[in-house]
Amino acid sequence: MRAEIIAVGTEILLGEITNTTTPFVARELADLGIDVYYQSVIGDNAERLEAAIKLADSRSELIILTGGLGPTKDDLTKQTLAAHLNEKLVVDAPAMAYIEEFFARSKRPMTENNRLQAMLPANSTPLKNPVGMAVGALYQAPAHTYMLLPGPPSELEAMFIDSARPILVAKFKQASVLESRVLRFHGIGESALVTQLADLIDSQTNPTIAPYAKTNEVTLRLTAEATDQANAQQLLIELEAEVQARVGAYFYGYGEHNSLEQVVVQLLKQRNLTITAAESLTSGLFQSMIANVSGASTVFNGGFVTYSLAEKAHLLQIDAAQLHKYGVVSQETALAMARQAKQIMQTDIAISFTGVAGPDTLEGQPAGTVYIGIAYRDQAPIARKFSFSKSRNSVRQQSALMGFDLLYHLLVVDK
Amino acid sequence: MRAEIIAVGTEILLGEITNTTTPFVARELADLGIDVYYQSVIGDNAERLEAAIKLADSRSELIILTGGLGPTKDDLTKQTLAAHLNEKLVVDAPAMAYIEEFFARSKRPMTENNRLQAMLPANSTPLKNPVGMAVGALYQAPAHTYMLLPGPPSELEAMFIDSARPILVAKFKQASVLESRVLRFHGIGESALVTQLADLIDSQTNPTIAPYAKTNEVTLRLTAEATDQANAQQLLIELEAEVQARVGAYFYGYGEHNSLEQVVVQLLKQRNLTITAAESLTSGLFQSMIANVSGASTVFNGGFVTYSLAEKAHLLQIDAAQLHKYGVVSQETALAMARQAKQIMQTDIAISFTGVAGPDTLEGQPAGTVYIGIAYRDQAPIARKFSFSKSRNSVRQQSALMGFDLLYHLLVVDK
Repeated sequence: MRAEIIAVGTEILLGEITNTTTPFVARELADLGIDVYYQSVIGDNAERLEAAIKLADSRSELIILTGGLGPTKDDLTKQTLAAHLNEKLVVDAPAMAYIEEFFARSKRPMTENNRLQAMLPANSTPLKNPVGMAVGALYQAPAHTYMLLPGPPSELEAMFIDSARPILVAKFKQASVLESRVLRFHGIGESALVTQLADLIDSQTNPTIAPYAKTNEVTLRLTAEATDQANAQQLLIELEAEVQARVGAYFYGYGEHNSLEQVVVQLLKQRNLTITAAESLTSGLFQSMIANVSGASTVFNGGFVTYSLAEKAHLLQIDAAQLHKYGVVSQETALAMARQAKQIMQTDIAISFTGVAGPDTLEGQPAGTVYIGIAYRDQAPIARKFSFSKSRNSVRQQSALMGFDLLYHLLVVDK
Repeated sequence: MRAEIIAVGTEILLGEITNTTTPFVARELADLGIDVYYQSVIGDNAERLEAAIKLADSRSELIILTGGLGPTKDDLTKQTLAAHLNEKLVVDAPAMAYIEEFFARSKRPMTENNRLQAMLPANSTPLKNPVGMAVGALYQAPAHTYMLLPGPPSELEAMFIDSARPILVAKFKQASVLESRVLRFHGIGESALVTQLADLIDSQTNPTIAPYAKTNEVTLRLTAEATDQANAQQLLIELEAEVQARVGAYFYGYGEHNSLEQVVVQLLKQRNLTITAAESLTSGLFQSMIANVSGASTVFNGGFVTYSLAEKAHLLQIDAAQLHKYGVVSQETALAMARQAKQIMQTDIAISFTGVAGPDTLEGQPAGTVYIGIAYRDQAPIARKFSFSKSRNSVRQQSALMGFDLLYHLLVVDK
């Protein structure tokens, strides 16, 4: 079973966007035990795309085309595949209904091009797009399986996991059962994680272990193959126990679609705890991440963005003389911010962020110096210092995520 | 002049690392006016790599191979290319001296494999590696130019800029000059934008027009080719005038690396205006985006996250009876939030966000219903209603971005 991925898009060819969808699909296929032998990128050009599909026919059985399903003139992937297959383009009714409803609701004019996004080669199986308009397709020819997936990563990933993956599993994995489990880690880099698991990774056959570095976190996907689900699960349980024994200190949750903020909000809900925040360098990012989680309003009512020293004094009612004495980049200020935010908002927990996002230094402290304070129930507030690196916005993101990490460990320890 | 980039490495093929070197090389070549028609990824397999080089010979003149120059057993790019060219591998003396010195200095044992990193196909021009051991190479055959570059991005980029680029400029730089300009639009979808420019896009030859959909915005890249920079710029000026006449209402700025929040913060700085925000459904996202911009502290001191009705009353001192009367999803509440935030923070501008992020309805209003209020100087506050669609977090992001859009138009009109 040889698979090949063809990404279509002039903007990828010109290097204007980095192709992250091909690696995603490659990892997913590897996880299903399907070997990817070739990846290529072709511009928005029907002739060269047709040549690429012909070449793929000559050397691969599963051919995955990504991108070029959009509404513009240069989007021609499905037209080219349909012509190659000698099929007409036909309308997928559910996709068309979704598009029409979208334009009706947003009161924007719908063009003829938008209708094109609901079309696919005749005799295809449609692949629903859970987050966008372009429908995907799977087409089974005698010697080849073709798959059409959208270019935007969020659309492709959702479509692949929801629709494409189950079909591939059913098609190519019949004799045995595949079960996977994704473990999520924060606070450890990919290379450090891999080093601690080196012997397990080197000797993997079944289950397999696939580490992926995400932005500011790492996931491990464990995949087991067995004659039935129970046996596959048993293999996963044994491997996970070994993994947790080594790197469990950095583990925070399961699942491909999970996040530290989801896990923390869930814990807060379970414990009936309320939270607020006082944010300086993160400037609302932490609170925005809380609201990423649906139903956050049961634990979060609001909080403060105190970007300047003056507003730390004004909104949080902290003594200005004290702020000037210790500086905003200090443990004392982080403690005072958390204490005051908790007091004003009458919550169970308050978290504070103050520090230097950069690029410039502040109060003589280098960019990346961050204090995070936590006031928890009637315990004495605590504050920890961190030294993050990389860009201004990476420092801000790492800070907010570390806030959730500290809360996770606080809540897990204090049952 | 057709160029092709072949990245060699099983770890790229498996999706274990994201290929960032190919986009880098592609951008550099585009910048030199060299057209990249194909990109591909091949595993560490001599037979498939040889087939890929043969295919490249059939369709491209400049063939760039990246990766596989390392010291391990699976690194075989230059061996495969040398065999393809019928050349022996020979030692590059400066590279060998560097490697020997490195191992002498670090007192680590030097293996035979390490010597391989200093070798290149006979009759090549060596390309010095300023940050690593593997030497690169340029080989001129009668009909093809081959280039060998290392896989690690830091090595490849340094080698390309220091050594490869100057050679390519001397070899291929055409008599003409390429100039580009990126125009950024918000509030119009890609398909609607393209429809309004359809005749320009259909008839494009020089300058070219390339539309790209980004998250919640669209960019257009105009690229002109001429005998000199002034003529190329003149072509761009004429085309942009035509584009602006049609879709200028949605235009907000220039540049590949720009954003609506950057443009708005810049305008605020120029006008010496200060801003605050009171955020309900966006929950700090707008304020976090302000702080994305370095130097935001000159215009922004802080603000409010008032997620619950109670905190709109408490933190913003809005009459609770009025909030209950109109509901949080209302124009009146958006106006009151903006008015009170401006009053409390004593800023020139305050913006407010209140509405239904979803997925559930709120106060009988569907997910995506959002009111944005603006209090500006001594003008009467205004509030507008929007109906956004897609996911909860997309609604929140679209809301925050629309806030910057409203401010942009306010500031551009009120000079």
